[in-house]
Amino acid sequence: MSQFQRSGARAADQLRPVRITRNYTIHAEGSVLIEFGNTKVLCTASVEEKVPGHKKGSGEGWVTAEYGMLPRATHTRSDREAARGKQSGRTQEIQRLIGRSMRAVFDLKKLGERTIYLDCDVLQADGGTRTAAITGAFVAAQDAVNQLMAQGKLSASPILDHVAAISVGIVQGTPLLDLEYTEDSACDTDMNVVMTGAGHYVEVQGTAEGAAFSRQEMDALLALADKGIHDLVLMQKQALSEE
Amino acid sequence: MSQFQRSGARAADQLRPVRITRNYTIHAEGSVLIEFGNTKVLCTASVEEKVPGHKKGSGEGWVTAEYGMLPRATHTRSDREAARGKQSGRTQEIQRLIGRSMRAVFDLKKLGERTIYLDCDVLQADGGTRTAAITGAFVAAQDAVNQLMAQGKLSASPILDHVAAISVGIVQGTPLLDLEYTEDSACDTDMNVVMTGAGHYVEVQGTAEGAAFSRQEMDALLALADKGIHDLVLMQKQALSEE
Amino acid sequence: MSQFQRSGARAADQLRPVRITRNYTIHAEGSVLIEFGNTKVLCTASVEEKVPGHKKGSGEGWVTAEYGMLPRATHTRSDREAARGKQSGRTQEIQRLIGRSMRAVFDLKKLGERTIYLDCDVLQADGGTRTAAITGAFVAAQDAVNQLMAQGKLSASPILDHVAAISVGIVQGTPLLDLEYTEDSACDTDMNVVMTGAGHYVEVQGTAEGAAFSRQEMDALLALADKGIHDLVLMQKQALSEE
Amino acid sequence: MSQFQRSGARAADQLRPVRITRNYTIHAEGSVLIEFGNTKVLCTASVEEKVPGHKKGSGEGWVTAEYGMLPRATHTRSDREAARGKQSGRTQEIQRLIGRSMRAVFDLKKLGERTIYLDCDVLQADGGTRTAAITGAFVAAQDAVNQLMAQGKLSASPILDHVAAISVGIVQGTPLLDLEYTEDSACDTDMNVVMTGAGHYVEVQGTAEGAAFSRQEMDALLALADKGIHDLVLMQKQALSEE
Amino acid sequence: MSQFQRSGARAADQLRPVRITRNYTIHAEGSVLIEFGNTKVLCTASVEEKVPGHKKGSGEGWVTAEYGMLPRATHTRSDREAARGKQSGRTQEIQRLIGRSMRAVFDLKKLGERTIYLDCDVLQADGGTRTAAITGAFVAAQDAVNQLMAQGKLSASPILDHVAAISVGIVQGTPLLDLEYTEDSACDTDMNVVMTGAGHYVEVQGTAEGAAFSRQEMDALLALADKGIHDLVLMQKQALSEE
Amino acid sequence: MSQFQRSGARAADQLRPVRITRNYTIHAEGSVLIEFGNTKVLCTASVEEKVPGHKKGSGEGWVTAEYGMLPRATHTRSDREAARGKQSGRTQEIQRLIGRSMRAVFDLKKLGERTIYLDCDVLQADGGTRTAAITGAFVAAQDAVNQLMAQGKLSASPILDHVAAISVGIVQGTPLLDLEYTEDSACDTDMNVVMTGAGHYVEVQGTAEGAAFSRQEMDALLALADKGIHDLVLMQKQALSEE
Repeated sequence: MSQFQRSGARAADQLRPVRITRNYTIHAEGSVLIEFGNTKVLCTASVEEKVPGHKKGSGEGWVTAEYGMLPRATHTRSDREAARGKQSGRTQEIQRLIGRSMRAVFDLKKLGERTIYLDCDVLQADGGTRTAAITGAFVAAQDAVNQLMAQGKLSASPILDHVAAISVGIVQGTPLLDLEYTEDSACDTDMNVVMTGAGHYVEVQGTAEGAAFSRQEMDALLALADKGIHDLVLMQKQALSEE
Repeated sequence: MSQFQRSGARAADQLRPVRITRNYTIHAEGSVLIEFGNTKVLCTASVEEKVPGHKKGSGEGWVTAEYGMLPRATHTRSDREAARGKQSGRTQEIQRLIGRSMRAVFDLKKLGERTIYLDCDVLQADGGTRTAAITGAFVAAQDAVNQLMAQGKLSASPILDHVAAISVGIVQGTPLLDLEYTEDSACDTDMNVVMTGAGHYVEVQGTAEGAAFSRQEMDALLALADKGIHDLVLMQKQALSEE
Repeated sequence: MSQFQRSGARAADQLRPVRITRNYTIHAEGSVLIEFGNTKVLCTASVEEKVPGHKKGSGEGWVTAEYGMLPRATHTRSDREAARGKQSGRTQEIQRLIGRSMRAVFDLKKLGERTIYLDCDVLQADGGTRTAAITGAFVAAQDAVNQLMAQGKLSASPILDHVAAISVGIVQGTPLLDLEYTEDSACDTDMNVVMTGAGHYVEVQGTAEGAAFSRQEMDALLALADKGIHDLVLMQKQALSEE
Repeated sequence: MSQFQRSGARAADQLRPVRITRNYTIHAEGSVLIEFGNTKVLCTASVEEKVPGHKKGSGEGWVTAEYGMLPRATHTRSDREAARGKQSGRTQEIQRLIGRSMRAVFDLKKLGERTIYLDCDVLQADGGTRTAAITGAFVAAQDAVNQLMAQGKLSASPILDHVAAISVGIVQGTPLLDLEYTEDSACDTDMNVVMTGAGHYVEVQGTAEGAAFSRQEMDALLALADKGIHDLVLMQKQALSEE
Repeated sequence: MSQFQRSGARAADQLRPVRITRNYTIHAEGSVLIEFGNTKVLCTASVEEKVPGHKKGSGEGWVTAEYGMLPRATHTRSDREAARGKQSGRTQEIQRLIGRSMRAVFDLKKLGERTIYLDCDVLQADGGTRTAAITGAFVAAQDAVNQLMAQGKLSASPILDHVAAISVGIVQGTPLLDLEYTEDSACDTDMNVVMTGAGHYVEVQGTAEGAAFSRQEMDALLALADKGIHDLVLMQKQALSEE
Repeated sequence: MSQFQRSGARAADQLRPVRITRNYTIHAEGSVLIEFGNTKVLCTASVEEKVPGHKKGSGEGWVTAEYGMLPRATHTRSDREAARGKQSGRTQEIQRLIGRSMRAVFDLKKLGERTIYLDCDVLQADGGTRTAAITGAFVAAQDAVNQLMAQGKLSASPILDHVAAISVGIVQGTPLLDLEYTEDSACDTDMNVVMTGAGHYVEVQGTAEGAAFSRQEMDALLALADKGIHDLVLMQKQALSEE
């Protein structure tokens, strides 16, 4: 089967250029601009010294996420969700995914009765916004936790491991890592994979957009994801090691 | 590793008793009560001779789904979504999943400019409501298509293959097929798998509720799902063969 | 005036076949499927050990109802109220009526500071859904109260009398008991009557759909309702006497 | 049984002073301030040369009503429905009742494809706001129809008869006509009756607030309503005869 | 420049006839109908012995306003905001303006932990509804405060000064005071000015509807507003001096 | 009167450092990041070849704006408006102001039947977000118009003049230009002024936050605004002259 040609001569198993900018804005406890090529997501971590109702009095904290996209982050303008008066099903699905992914590497007991909100707002979209959001939100959360520890509010880190996410998919028969928008629109199968630094799965969400996919294709996709997550976790560590 | 003991001495790779009752109500073009043990979902298929805006003039039809749960389908009463004034993120996620699963086996061109609505309403819940809904909705959709063909409105069936769904998960280290509620609440990993009659994947949604899961565990879960779907497709065929 | 011919050779003062199935679902404190011919309503009673704001600290309990109709309970599919984001005026009117009817036979002081929710969900509609809902909800409420008494949470029953409801109307000049859908659509006058076991009125709601109605017609309708309620109360007693 | 003493030595079968002021505001096609004692409702009729979807192309018109209460029309301030973002069940029930009552005396074919909106806004409440609204809305509707006829837009009046409404109830065992607020709060049974000029029923809505009521009590209430409506129709005619 | 001719030979710097009717309705602590020509706004002041969350425990009170317009207060019927399910941006802007204007002359500490709600409902509109609302709301607020003092709930008045408002604008090159609707629709510049009895500015909101306006034009408008407010404050004092 | 000391030794009549970055994102027809010190607003202009209902068939176009603030643009996290399900009154006020300001310098006839949406999203807030938004939105709008002209869709520019905005206020008795957040929170009077390149007023919105302000103070504020706008228009021109 002839290979699908990616833009910029990118290899099938190659990530787009990833950039992680910490302290992108000044108010939040953690503030990270993450770029996967032309996809740019601002991830802020906000700490509040209270918890939602279902955690009150439990001694445990909570980690949750919200996701949004600026109206013109995309090729054509989308309606502003605040103006329409509700979040779309897609938005809710994504923010629930980000929240679960973060909680998978958090020990909520060690966090104490406080909440970390991760706000992931897409400034520019070119495919993979939810995976960029998860990967960036982790860095913002780590910065917020570091600040809590520096302030003496936490004695031990509630963060158990890294978490990162990447999309994989099959375009014209070729399994590809980190789909950009044109690839995403054309793909037969689209899978988002969230993994820990230890290489275990937190979430696997694969969808046949066109034809249903075989077990063999799934194995190829999971192998690509494995490689991509490995690279992303290294970049998170690199970003967090800088002053 | 010691095996987790399932209720009713059910084997790890065994489905709960499945019952598919066609023509459960009288008005809909397809009306199926599907039971996975104590989980009971009423799936109706309604045909409307019009399509949503994004399909108008395309010559293609549309297949979509809505999901609901009666307030006391569950152990404790949940708020009625109609009274609260909005569907939860969970509800939207599930109905989007059902819709995508149905469309994966539909040739929308062959359907013509009409819409099939699949309404999946949970009368009683005991785990696996979304997988029961998908499995039952397929049968209701097939009944509606058969009626359209009998009426001469369709000359060829737009349905390309069967589609069915099952949950799998890891409970206390044991991979299990078709989780009931007590298993679902206790599981470390929960995966919903949607497959075609031909044995290909339409959706794979795995979530680590507790610890992240390994590749080996994923393989075990996918094997269980494979078996479960195979059985469910046979039951769909059996149900559809009856007068 | 020639008599209107009813389906199944039903007499003008005859109820449709009524079936009351207790314990229809497993989770609720009371769960009743009531059928008036082809009209099928699932009525569940849920007990919660708290009261709404206006009863807090009063020593009194509360009894309230919610009503819904599955989208394809009807001949043509209706919009799902949860998806539209609000309950229709009709839905609210009906659930307020059910709630008032139940409270008419409840001593809220004897109930203590707890709430009974009656959820009435129409699985299949063929006229008379609100009267079936009231008649079935009473049985579900009685089952829930019996359970509270068996658990020792109540020493005396807060239920003062039976309550049941029936529709009556004038179709082509003929007063009829228990209208089915085709009769309901064709009627000039439509009246819903809610009465106690003692034969007193709880609610009388008569509406001229076509021509305004005379006092003589009203008297004929009230007489029919009287008979119908008498029969329904007997059926409630019969159903409740079964194990 | 000792008689309940009414304020101002009002007899049991006596209406409060009724005042009907036409042309109360300047913009509407009909604008009536109606007063039942201290209850004051502004009823405007607005004509629009279009019909709602279900009447398009039918050649018929539509008559509909909306009801509101100023936040401080009542003893204590109520939330503004526009600020809360929805109309209460009570509001919807009342505006549906007003709409049905008006349509009962309208020949929609003769109205042609136009809509008459009746907006009934309570400036001051002291019981009986819905019955005052119906009685006043009729006068506003008549003024709007007269204007359409004067403009040559209608050649024959679509209004078939008068319609008016009154409340009756049983307070401390005494049947009373036209309840004011203190009577309404104390009553055992509350009934709203809508009748035509010809003395036929359009709507009868009786509710047992306390004990259920007997047939004998109902007969007493209907007799009172009959008298009250007769008086109100005379006052409508008187008001409409003035320049 | 030729002068614009105003209706009723009104001079450019002349207010429309202003009428302030206190105790217009019976329930509210203050109730004022204010008329600026054909513009009629009912302003009620309601006292509640509690404060919103941001003032709890502060020892301070709160003064806030809500604004509404009856659907047919205007030339053509507007949608009812309660039925549409939300207040328009215009409505919110106006009620925020009224609230700020009232608070500008209130010492919230002296008010104590209670809230005064000012409900301003337009019964009939002919331009200048927000300025009439502010001017009338002040009188209603003063009546409510007087009642609190008479009841001994307040020992000193929390009201620091009068506040009133007027519109000014430039129509066909002529600066005019107190625009009526036809002037407002035709104006190039529209300015609402809120001032205290001492002649200081509380709010100045000028908008170029057509061409942008010069500093010289602004000065002319401010001079007109100055005169108008001076007159209105006198009328407020006159109205408040009557029994 | 002793002068208030501004951060960074800024003079009372000095703007914060202003930075205007064009083409900040890639999809929009105009995309500008504008910074007033630490306030950062992303302004995009999106062209759609259709108009809202009230302009259909008029031959005229429309220019409108929406405004949003990321949840953690501020010192403490604010609720996400999309999640709450409505835009605040403040948000609506601001976006209406931006829209009017843009339309003040647009000839809608020359624009033709198309709409320009200006989305102003605050990434980081430190006072003056609405004035930065207006100033930046103008540049984005100019870029969008330039693109329409380059594409031959417009032969003449519909833009009549520059428009820019600045805040002024009185802090501790000192009139200041371009308030930052700490100044804004402490000010007695706050005024937002929108002016054209020709130096005329489009909007003047002054509010006494504390004491009412005198005519002399207003004159001082208007003079400051005049200077600020003059500087901002020069910066807009400089930014637009760059490739």
